[in-house]
Amino acid sequence: MSTTTTRTARNGVDIPNLFGTINAVREQPEMAKFRFRATNRWVVGTHSRTTIEQFSGAGGEHSHAQTFAYDSDHPAVLVGTDQGPAPVEFLLHAIGACLMAGIANVASARGVTLTSVEARIEGDIDLRGILGLSREVRNGYSQIRVAFSIDGDAPPEKLREIVEQSRARSAVYDVLTNGVDVQVDVAV
Amino acid sequence: MSTTTTRTARNGVDIPNLFGTINAVREQPEMAKFRFRATNRWVVGTHSRTTIEQFSGAGGEHSHAQTFAYDSDHPAVLVGTDQGPAPVEFLLHAIGACLMAGIANVASARGVTLTSVEARIEGDIDLRGILGLSREVRNGYSQIRVAFSIDGDAPPEKLREIVEQSRARSAVYDVLTNGVDVQVDVAV
Repeated sequence: MSTTTTRTARNGVDIPNLFGTINAVREQPEMAKFRFRATNRWVVGTHSRTTIEQFSGAGGEHSHAQTFAYDSDHPAVLVGTDQGPAPVEFLLHAIGACLMAGIANVASARGVTLTSVEARIEGDIDLRGILGLSREVRNGYSQIRVAFSIDGDAPPEKLREIVEQSRARSAVYDVLTNGVDVQVDVAV
Repeated sequence: MSTTTTRTARNGVDIPNLFGTINAVREQPEMAKFRFRATNRWVVGTHSRTTIEQFSGAGGEHSHAQTFAYDSDHPAVLVGTDQGPAPVEFLLHAIGACLMAGIANVASARGVTLTSVEARIEGDIDLRGILGLSREVRNGYSQIRVAFSIDGDAPPEKLREIVEQSRARSAVYDVLTNGVDVQVDVAV
C-alpha cells in the first residue's frame, strides 16, 4: 500500500503525511518548536566552511541523512579566493529554495500537478556600505527579486495563487522582509 | 614578489589589495554597485537545486571559478526527503560565513594574527506559523544566535572588538536584522 502511495504522490509530496503532521502539531503545539544549527569554521582569508548536521524539533533531536558542508568566500574582485559563493549569495539560494518547497506543497494540497518550476533570484547591493565609504548606504541588499517561471496542469491564475500562498507562508521570506533578532556573542 | 606577498599575508588576507580596492571605490562610487544572482530549479517534492555562477559589479560581469550548486529539501520529520538542508538552515550558514569573512579582514587590517575562529549558530522557529496553525506565530525564526570562539595574538578585548566591527559591517547581519524589500514575480 505504501509503495502505491509513494508512486502516485502528486509532485512527490506525501500529502496524507503532510496533513497528518499538521494535525499532530495542532494537538501538541510544543511539537512545532524547532531549533536549527550550523557550525562555521574559519579556513583562511575570507574562506570559511559551514557544517550542518543536527537539529531539534517535534520533541526530539534529529540528524540529517549526512553531514552537509558548504564553503563560502569572497570572489577575487572582492579580495577573496572564490572557494565558494559569497555569504550574501547564499541568501538568494535560501529564499529561492524556501519558496520552491512551499510551491510544491501548496500545489500538491490543491491537486495541481507541476511540470517545471524555476526561480531566477537577484539582489542589488552597494558595497560602499560594507567598505565604510558612506554612512547613507546600508551594508546589505537594497532589494531582492525572485522571478518564477511555473508550468502545471492549472490555469495561470491558479498557478499564481500557489506562488502567492507559498510566499505568504515562507519562513525565509518572513525573515528577509521583516528581519529577526540576531545575537552575536564572543568567547575568547 | 607577488609570491612573497601571498606567503606573508596575515591570515591569508591581502591587505594592500583590500585597501587598494577601497580607495578605487572611493574614487569611482559606481564600482560599488553589485548584483548577485542565483537560479533555483524544482526537482521533486520539497527538493530543489540552486546554481550560482555569475554576478556583476566593479563595472563588469564576473563568473565564479566554477558553477556552484546546492540542494535544499525539507527533512523527513517535515515530510521531505532530506536531500539537503532546509532553506532556513542556509540562513545560519550565511550569517556565520559573513561575520567570519569580516573577522579575517578586520583582524588583518588591525595587525592581529588569528589562530582559530569558530562560530556556532542556532535559530529558533515555531512551525505553527508556516503550518498555518496560529496567527500569532510568525513564519520565520524568532531569534538567531551566533556564538564565536576566537583565538589570536591579541588581548581578549581587542579580539572582541574585531568581532564587533565585523558585525557592524556585515551585509548578511544587516539584511537579517533590518529586513529587505523582496519582490516575487510570476510568469506562467
